[in-house]
Amino acid sequence: MTYCVGVQLNQGLVFMSDTRTNAGIDNVSQAKKMHSWEVPGERVITLMTAGNLATTQSVVSLLDERTKAPEDRNPSILEAPSMFQAARIVGQTLREVIQSHAPTGATADAAFGATIIVGGQIAGSPPRLFMIYPEGNFIESSPDNPFFQIGETKYGKPILVRAYDAAMSFEEAIKLLLVSFDSTIKANLSVGLPLDYQTVPAGRMEIGRQGRIEADDPYFDMVSKGWGEALRAAFAQLPGFRF
Amino acid sequence: MTYCVGVQLNQGLVFMSDTRTNAGIDNVSQAKKMHSWEVPGERVITLMTAGNLATTQSVVSLLDERTKAPEDRNPSILEAPSMFQAARIVGQTLREVIQSHAPTGATADAAFGATIIVGGQIAGSPPRLFMIYPEGNFIESSPDNPFFQIGETKYGKPILVRAYDAAMSFEEAIKLLLVSFDSTIKANLSVGLPLDYQTVPAGRMEIGRQGRIEADDPYFDMVSKGWGEALRAAFAQLPGFRF
Repeated sequence: MTYCVGVQLNQGLVFMSDTRTNAGIDNVSQAKKMHSWEVPGERVITLMTAGNLATTQSVVSLLDERTKAPEDRNPSILEAPSMFQAARIVGQTLREVIQSHAPTGATADAAFGATIIVGGQIAGSPPRLFMIYPEGNFIESSPDNPFFQIGETKYGKPILVRAYDAAMSFEEAIKLLLVSFDSTIKANLSVGLPLDYQTVPAGRMEIGRQGRIEADDPYFDMVSKGWGEALRAAFAQLPGFRF
Repeated sequence: MTYCVGVQLNQGLVFMSDTRTNAGIDNVSQAKKMHSWEVPGERVITLMTAGNLATTQSVVSLLDERTKAPEDRNPSILEAPSMFQAARIVGQTLREVIQSHAPTGATADAAFGATIIVGGQIAGSPPRLFMIYPEGNFIESSPDNPFFQIGETKYGKPILVRAYDAAMSFEEAIKLLLVSFDSTIKANLSVGLPLDYQTVPAGRMEIGRQGRIEADDPYFDMVSKGWGEALRAAFAQLPGFRF
C-alpha cells in the first residue's frame, strides 16, 4: 500500500506521502509518490499517487511529457485554465492508462488500479484539492471534507478527524500529519519512511516549503515517542470506568 | 462490518463487541455478536463473530444445539477437554457452514466468510484466547500478541498498540476498549452502539462482569468527548515542527 494525505487549510495546501512500495511482502522498495509542476507566479500543481506503481508512474510520465513539447501540450496540465480542468486531465490520463492494461476496462477493482490526490493553484482562483478515482472521476475538498487520504487510510484517520483545524499553520499541519503517519507506520508494514512533504501557500502560485523526513529524523523520532507517552497520559486522565 | 476485540490480561480475558449489522448502507440492523457457554466452576467459553450474519448465526446455533442434547454432544464445546479443542470445534463448524453455502469451498474471500474470536477457560488450564479464520484454522494470543480484533480493525488499533498493558485492571481495559471503539465509530458507519462487554476472571471458570453500553450511556459520552479534548491537548503539547 501507501499512505498519502492532502490537507486544505486557510493558509493553503499541505501534502505528505510515504515512499514505500511493495509487490508482496518479500519485494519492498522505495519510490517517490509526490510530483509537482510549477510555473512560479502562474500555477503550481502537486499530485500524489497510491496503487499500482506501473500505473501511477505511467500517469506521471504521460502528464510530464505533455508539459514539455509545446506541440503536444493539448491536453497539458500546464495549459489547463483551472484546477478543475487539470484534475480532469489527470483523471482522463489515469483512466486511459488503467484501460490500456485491463482487458475489461477500468473498474474500482481493477488489478492495475490507482487513486490520486491532486491539488494546487492557478492564478485567478483559490487553491483547490481533488481526489481522483481509478475510473477517472473525482471529488473536491470542502470545509466539510477538508482533507483526502489515499492508500492505507484508516489507522491515521482518527487523529486527523479529532485535531484538524482549518486555521492551523503549515508547521502545525505537518506535525499533525507526522502523528497520523506515525500511527499508520506503527501498525502497517506497507507504509514506511522517508516521508515527503510540501506546502502550497495560497496566492503565491509556487511551491512553498518542501522536504523529506528521513528514517533517522530526530524530530520524527521525538514525535513518535512523545505521542506514545502523550496518548498514555491522555488515556490515564480520562475518568475511569466502574462496573 | 463489525468491530470486536478480545484482550488477554494478567487478570483474565475481556471481550467487547458492537451490535451493528448491515446488508448494504440502506439495510442496517442490530445483532448481538457475543455468545457465551458456561458451566460455572468448570468452564466458560465466549465467542464473538464478524462477517456474514447468516454464517455466524448458523455457527452459533450449531454450537449451541450440540451443547443441549447429550446424545449429540460429540463434538460439543461443553465436552472439549481443552480450550484448544474447543477452538478446533468452532473452526471446524465455521468451515462446514461456509463450505455448505459456497460452491467452491471456503476461501478467505468467500462471500459467506466470517472470522471468530473465541476465548475462555476450562478447569486445569489458564485462560486462552484464539482468533479463527474462515478456513477453520486459528491462532492463539501470546504476550507478544495479547489482543485480537476482527471486523473494522484499523481505526481502533493505534490506541490499543500504544496503551495496552497486561497488568491493567478489567475496568481500565474496558475504558481502553471504549476509546478504541469510539475512534472506530467516529470514522466508520458500519460499527455502532450499543456495545456488549464481558470479563472472564482467571481461575473462576465463570463469566465475571457483563453488560451493554447503550447509545445514550453517559460514561461513553464522557469518554468520547473527553478523548477528543485529551487528544487535542496531547497533540498541542508535542514539540512543534520547524521548517
